Amino acid sequence: MRIDIITVVPDILRSPFEASILQRAIKKGLVQIHLHNLRDYVTDNYKQVDDYQFGGGAGMVMMIEPIDKCISKLKAERDYQEIIYMTPDGERLNQKMSNRLSLQENMIILCGHYKGVDQRVRDHFITKEISIGDYVLSGGELGAAVLCDSIIRLIPGVLGNETSALTDSFQDNLLAPPVYTRPAEYKGWEVPSILTSGNFPKIEAWREQQAYERTQALRPDLLEEE
Amino acid sequence: MRIDIITVVPDILRSPFEASILQRAIKKGLVQIHLHNLRDYVTDNYKQVDDYQFGGGAGMVMMIEPIDKCISKLKAERDYQEIIYMTPDGERLNQKMSNRLSLQENMIILCGHYKGVDQRVRDHFITKEISIGDYVLSGGELGAAVLCDSIIRLIPGVLGNETSALTDSFQDNLLAPPVYTRPAEYKGWEVPSILTSGNFPKIEAWREQQAYERTQALRPDLLEEE
Repeated sequence: MRIDIITVVPDILRSPFEASILQRAIKKGLVQIHLHNLRDYVTDNYKQVDDYQFGGGAGMVMMIEPIDKCISKLKAERDYQEIIYMTPDGERLNQKMSNRLSLQENMIILCGHYKGVDQRVRDHFITKEISIGDYVLSGGELGAAVLCDSIIRLIPGVLGNETSALTDSFQDNLLAPPVYTRPAEYKGWEVPSILTSGNFPKIEAWREQQAYERTQALRPDLLEEE
Repeated sequence: MRIDIITVVPDILRSPFEASILQRAIKKGLVQIHLHNLRDYVTDNYKQVDDYQFGGGAGMVMMIEPIDKCISKLKAERDYQEIIYMTPDGERLNQKMSNRLSLQENMIILCGHYKGVDQRVRDHFITKEISIGDYVLSGGELGAAVLCDSIIRLIPGVLGNETSALTDSFQDNLLAPPVYTRPAEYKGWEVPSILTSGNFPKIEAWREQQAYERTQALRPDLLEEE
């Protein structure tokens, strides 16, 4: 998989890809991440990527021309299945969407900043608008990092133990059951005795029951899907 | 505001706080971010912070003792209004929650990794569990960065123009209207003529109408709240 990220602040995105699971996925050659600084696609001397809104009002808007130049250059080099814009009014990311996107070959992610991008960019270049949640961030960069993380960890070979992702929350519309590790007793707080019983069929049944009860209590909406 | 972030991979979190709006908020003294490496609170020589799950199964679980030590040390130094755990089965972050949290003085954010933390940590130390969305990430670090960004930008003085945050999506349960900037015509695509009319009351009315229509089309659920 190849992901091209277009941004005015590539520095924000350095460290998330230089540590832990994403770094290992890149080193293993399972994914390529390319950061593109939008300022490299500006022709004027001021490296201006944004301008005041038509009609007035607070907040700057990212201009169409540098974005067009960057996307057009990338599209001339290879085919992209999706050109994604991160925006709070996009389709909300969920695990199903991450599963689907993890099967794509090439993707562009455009990060908005300030008040967002000129609407004509969205109308003419973007194939999919994604929101990571109902809140506003300084820019699309952290959303892009979240999207990449949620997708990349699903690519076979990225996680050490492939069964690990399959037992995560949401993969079967259930929240994950509680987990415990050593010591079995800490300051008088004990782990549920079933987990140290060695009776694995009973442990599995307990976990399913816990996952179901937790979902019922915290997120009954998940049980109603399909 | 002071935010203490507890993590096993502090490196992931370096760059988001060293660029753009978050960096400026820190430099202005409006917020302090302290990263704590959980491995500094481990007494054994292997710096072990995680262990196998009781009851078997894939994925490691973060142990209670180093987390207890780190949280206890911080709590001995000052009062915290919230000790937050980032987890996909937590309460879903939204703009209202960000608004509320932006008024707090001191907060701890615990980032899970691997399969998450020992359930006893959640039962005995955590005051609030937050999810940034219905998807699974490699760890809580990006979630913590998202939470910090959504909160910090709301602190007065952080954004250059304070009216900017108030016209964002969600602040009035509406999505933001479309925005445009120069040039007025690009490859034959023109901005709506109302925006270059100079008639500001009409522009305001158009924006409100657009915001309402966009919300109606994309997120009718927002209009049903309250």
